[in-house]
Amino acid sequence: MLKAAVLMTMGLAYGDLAQAATPPTVSTRAMAIHRQVLTLDTHLDTPAHFTRPGWDFAARHSLATDTSQVDLPRMRTGALDGGFFVIYTPQGPRTPDATAKARDDAIMRAVEIREMAARLHDRVALATDAADAERIITSGRTIIYQSIENAYPVSGDLGLLDTFYALGVRMVGVVHFSNNDLGDSSTDPKGAEWHGLSPLGRQLVAKANSLGMVLDASHGSDEVLDQLLDLSRAPIILSHSGCKGVYEHPRNVDDPRLQRLAAQGGVVQINSFGTYLAATVPDVERDKALQELNTRYGKRHEMTMAQTAAFVAERDAILQRYPGFERSYEQFAAHLLHALRVLGPDHVGIGLDWDGGGGVSGMKDVTSIPRITQTLLDAGYGEGDIAKIWGGNVLRVLKAVEAMADHPQSSSSQ
Amino acid sequence: MLKAAVLMTMGLAYGDLAQAATPPTVSTRAMAIHRQVLTLDTHLDTPAHFTRPGWDFAARHSLATDTSQVDLPRMRTGALDGGFFVIYTPQGPRTPDATAKARDDAIMRAVEIREMAARLHDRVALATDAADAERIITSGRTIIYQSIENAYPVSGDLGLLDTFYALGVRMVGVVHFSNNDLGDSSTDPKGAEWHGLSPLGRQLVAKANSLGMVLDASHGSDEVLDQLLDLSRAPIILSHSGCKGVYEHPRNVDDPRLQRLAAQGGVVQINSFGTYLAATVPDVERDKALQELNTRYGKRHEMTMAQTAAFVAERDAILQRYPGFERSYEQFAAHLLHALRVLGPDHVGIGLDWDGGGGVSGMKDVTSIPRITQTLLDAGYGEGDIAKIWGGNVLRVLKAVEAMADHPQSSSSQ
Repeated sequence: MLKAAVLMTMGLAYGDLAQAATPPTVSTRAMAIHRQVLTLDTHLDTPAHFTRPGWDFAARHSLATDTSQVDLPRMRTGALDGGFFVIYTPQGPRTPDATAKARDDAIMRAVEIREMAARLHDRVALATDAADAERIITSGRTIIYQSIENAYPVSGDLGLLDTFYALGVRMVGVVHFSNNDLGDSSTDPKGAEWHGLSPLGRQLVAKANSLGMVLDASHGSDEVLDQLLDLSRAPIILSHSGCKGVYEHPRNVDDPRLQRLAAQGGVVQINSFGTYLAATVPDVERDKALQELNTRYGKRHEMTMAQTAAFVAERDAILQRYPGFERSYEQFAAHLLHALRVLGPDHVGIGLDWDGGGGVSGMKDVTSIPRITQTLLDAGYGEGDIAKIWGGNVLRVLKAVEAMADHPQSSSSQ
Repeated sequence: MLKAAVLMTMGLAYGDLAQAATPPTVSTRAMAIHRQVLTLDTHLDTPAHFTRPGWDFAARHSLATDTSQVDLPRMRTGALDGGFFVIYTPQGPRTPDATAKARDDAIMRAVEIREMAARLHDRVALATDAADAERIITSGRTIIYQSIENAYPVSGDLGLLDTFYALGVRMVGVVHFSNNDLGDSSTDPKGAEWHGLSPLGRQLVAKANSLGMVLDASHGSDEVLDQLLDLSRAPIILSHSGCKGVYEHPRNVDDPRLQRLAAQGGVVQINSFGTYLAATVPDVERDKALQELNTRYGKRHEMTMAQTAAFVAERDAILQRYPGFERSYEQFAAHLLHALRVLGPDHVGIGLDWDGGGGVSGMKDVTSIPRITQTLLDAGYGEGDIAKIWGGNVLRVLKAVEAMADHPQSSSSQ
């Protein structure tokens, strides 16, 4: 356990010093509650780093040197007990060959997550049902659930959802940035193709319900969300989303839809992906500079450590030249508090999109998340509410989904 | 390194004392050569034990208490450097649902092998190409190749062979005890269904060649072997077979076929599965007692340790009551030496079928395999030949298969 004196300044002591210009203060009481409650983040894209040469989930990294935001030591610092580790597949061509390749890549991503868990079995454990979370954290280990972002890998054969279930996956999102054979994305420039779910997407809903896999509407169009709510026998989730009531963006969800999600027992997990949180002053020069930088360096996960450090330095220089681009912690908190006001503490949670584009000034990696507990305390929420928001709600949804499955499974995890 | 004095009596010192009535003597020279050469067994069914509650590949077990024949400590005792760990699938119904279930079970078996390797990464390493073997053993670790026994799991979609390739599998056998959608088994009581490979089985050959996966003819009918030799662009293997020239049994292969296999650069790996080695005196009472015992206890891998110990005690009592049932080490060696006489030392190797039914009196688990090196020395083979037989030949085949693949892969293992 960290000592109170240390906790008072943990932003400075443990955060990303180079970038924490104004470290947040987290009170002793907030930190004590934060450590006390079970904390889960429902959208951790960290597995994308697992195969980077020299990158090790068990070692402490930093945003400045390799752009990563989550690892085991930093989770311990930020007292994040676990979460859903994402099997993310970029949308590719909707051809049999490309879909088969996506299937194999997604299976291997699940294997990489499981191999990480096997290698670090003294410090982490795979979780496959709601009851696992408490059991694992009581054993002093970190909780590793798995989820699918973009069901494209199973779009060639929905029976592959059984394969991912066998691999331990317990949450499935329909789409990513673009429409696919299952349904419409909220951000496809071509607009609606299916007006919600495709016929295959409707089969996916039934199949996920039958297996006991949580359906995730994040990235789906409004019509996808509506139809998931129409069709799903079990509560659903928005694993990393925001509120149109705060900022009008296609990736965010309006209050009536959030209310319907809540009425059906679901939960919205608030993300920290800047573009969705607030507008910035339009600046063609800045956008051009950032785009040129991104094009020149290519995919972050394919960079060497040296390239990454150079990239980060160049990006920081651009952001200094054009201040006001980065969204702030307060802009993130506005979404969280809005959702809580509209839905109450039983239907809101946390899914920050770490390692997938999440992060705001004042909360740039997982070490800073105790700020969220401070914000919740400041807003008048008590420990019971905070426990629901940080993990209780998503576990309730998972439990409900398990109970409504056709063949409820007993725990098969280690 | 074990000391010479110990080595002289290693059968007694390290073997299965309870069952080693006449411990073999392995000379200091034989043991030194045995330890010097790279030793691989091409058919280890040990992964079937991996999910047994309380069974741990890293711990020393015994045949008497849990029927297992291979684990890491016993491999070290027997100086087996590694081998092909089998993804075995019993032949089930040839329906879409059952085939999909077989797909998932086989994927999970590969995952279990990889999780074992991840957990024991300081002592073992996955191998995916021929060059890995030397690299891994030089690092002091045990070599874990993966192979498929029975391609039934990919019979619903041959594209799944890509998935298994991605998982690291580098050898694929067509059938097991029964015919399937890919070809005929040597032991299906219904006889030939396809007269060799089915059209799908022919596609499997092309696909395995293209990927760089070794084709395994063991369990296939003679016609399957003939057609694999007709169609494969690369050398093929019999991963665990015997010689009809010694004992006429459908699972064994006649000399002309073995000669053709060798002429195309292939290799036959001699197994120690009693039923295929030699006839026993027919004894209805004995067979009835054994069958009743097997029926009463069910699948060995599903037994508790206590049940297993009781089973082994009962089985030993039956075998004592009806002596002469168990085949002997000498009967195994007859197949090995026959194959060597017919094919020479470049086309014969070792695949004992441990944990899949292998084992003879005098060589009941992996600790006893130095006897084989002694036998080879006694038969006049030198260290160079012994090195080929114990590993060089199969690595030559694997290397040839890699070289003939459409997109030769560089090593992707850890």
